[in-house]
Amino acid sequence: MMELECVAENRCFAGSVRRFRHFSNACQTPMRFAVYLPPQAQKERLPVLYYLAGLTCTEETFLIKAGAQRWAAELGLILVAPDTSPREARLPGDDAHWDFGMGAGFYLRAAQAPWQQHYQMYDYVTEELPALLAQEFSVDATRASIMGHSMGGHGALICALREPQRYRSVSAFAPVSAPGQVPWGEKAFTGYLGEDRQAWAEWDASRLVLRQRFPGEILVDQGLADPFLKEQLRPEIFSAACAEAGQPLRYREHAGYDHSYYFISSFMEEHLRHHAAALQV
Amino acid sequence: MMELECVAENRCFAGSVRRFRHFSNACQTPMRFAVYLPPQAQKERLPVLYYLAGLTCTEETFLIKAGAQRWAAELGLILVAPDTSPREARLPGDDAHWDFGMGAGFYLRAAQAPWQQHYQMYDYVTEELPALLAQEFSVDATRASIMGHSMGGHGALICALREPQRYRSVSAFAPVSAPGQVPWGEKAFTGYLGEDRQAWAEWDASRLVLRQRFPGEILVDQGLADPFLKEQLRPEIFSAACAEAGQPLRYREHAGYDHSYYFISSFMEEHLRHHAAALQV
Repeated sequence: MMELECVAENRCFAGSVRRFRHFSNACQTPMRFAVYLPPQAQKERLPVLYYLAGLTCTEETFLIKAGAQRWAAELGLILVAPDTSPREARLPGDDAHWDFGMGAGFYLRAAQAPWQQHYQMYDYVTEELPALLAQEFSVDATRASIMGHSMGGHGALICALREPQRYRSVSAFAPVSAPGQVPWGEKAFTGYLGEDRQAWAEWDASRLVLRQRFPGEILVDQGLADPFLKEQLRPEIFSAACAEAGQPLRYREHAGYDHSYYFISSFMEEHLRHHAAALQV
Repeated sequence: MMELECVAENRCFAGSVRRFRHFSNACQTPMRFAVYLPPQAQKERLPVLYYLAGLTCTEETFLIKAGAQRWAAELGLILVAPDTSPREARLPGDDAHWDFGMGAGFYLRAAQAPWQQHYQMYDYVTEELPALLAQEFSVDATRASIMGHSMGGHGALICALREPQRYRSVSAFAPVSAPGQVPWGEKAFTGYLGEDRQAWAEWDASRLVLRQRFPGEILVDQGLADPFLKEQLRPEIFSAACAEAGQPLRYREHAGYDHSYYFISSFMEEHLRHHAAALQV
């Protein structure tokens, strides 16, 4: 069993950004994640807010680009950003595509060979990482929320819809809202889950929400100048499914904003306040 | 004469981040810079705050990592970040070192061949870029301030000390405070200015301040866990020179902080408020 290895630490807003490497039992390979511990973490157990990043990102992206630490320090939230896939255990073709394999784990349980050996990001994010955090940091494990961007925005939605008891709130920036009906998702689901589209239902937020609601309002922000809006993100499918299911959804469209962290950072404070309100009850 | 070409634009905090490429007369090669235009720029002429980045950075680094747009949008400041050197005109050996040549222009007027052909970053930053901005954007050219980090922190100091009439305020994060006495500076000054150390005086903030004060308090933040503190940054030399010269200096040390943008972002709001106070008079 590999120790939790701190590979980098930087003081930030009177707290610290730390990057870790450890052996993941879920993924059966070393994994990396980053944490922001706000100053309050030295004195009390704090709630945790998970952030799942999008295609090609790493565990560093969010803490470098999103500007969230400022608000986490004010609100007393621990931020946790896992990597977007296994990287050390190599599989044939895992770096052949930027939207499949490395950097593109899609936060599900892969069932197809060879990916099922390591691409178990769902269990890693929802079970292994929370247990590790509870053991290693001054975390209040009963208070957790989840958010994400693009592929990771959808990841946050499926985590919250599949296991609503684990999360107090959920939000997403420009999520891939209906992966079973768009090119990125069809490619990933075919590769990780196989050809049987029935099996895709439990990993597609727009189908999951028809079966089980999240007990709280889901917050989604979408830029209208996002180049992936119409072909890959398809927020109208998720909105329609939420309406059909009676799922409370606050879906906001923002003129002029694109898919970048310039968009994400612009609304990060509001997302962190959304989560803090749910976590600090 | 090359047009001002906008190579990227991203909406951010209700304003926009734009990156430009244009032919620089000072550097005799195309140069790049980035701008953040806050929402107020649509209606009124705004003051400009220049940010000079450190070794290896580009015009993008500041706007991606520093979290400044949030405060510029609130305070009504236009942010301008030039690249750290010419890049398109290639010179022999310009990419042989990370701390000299490309990405390491040191914001001076190179006098040594072959660098003097293109490495005229001082004239580019203090004259050409402000004139271009006044022509192309809704800028109040009478109100400008300057800040920077590391090599660029020193760049900001020399711009303000050499031409105090151009800037209302100046601040620096972890500046290379006395380049004539440290390895980074000795390497750069020898290469760009030559062996004669007398000629270095007008490009070294710790010597310049003995000749001419800046009419305002200089703000400098320094992390005490900065790995470059003792060998390259040497803030004590600049502090002593300011004391000798009677130059008002607010020099702040921060335990635990390093040289990264995690440090810079932690104090960015304070720097922008420092400049806004001087610019909005």
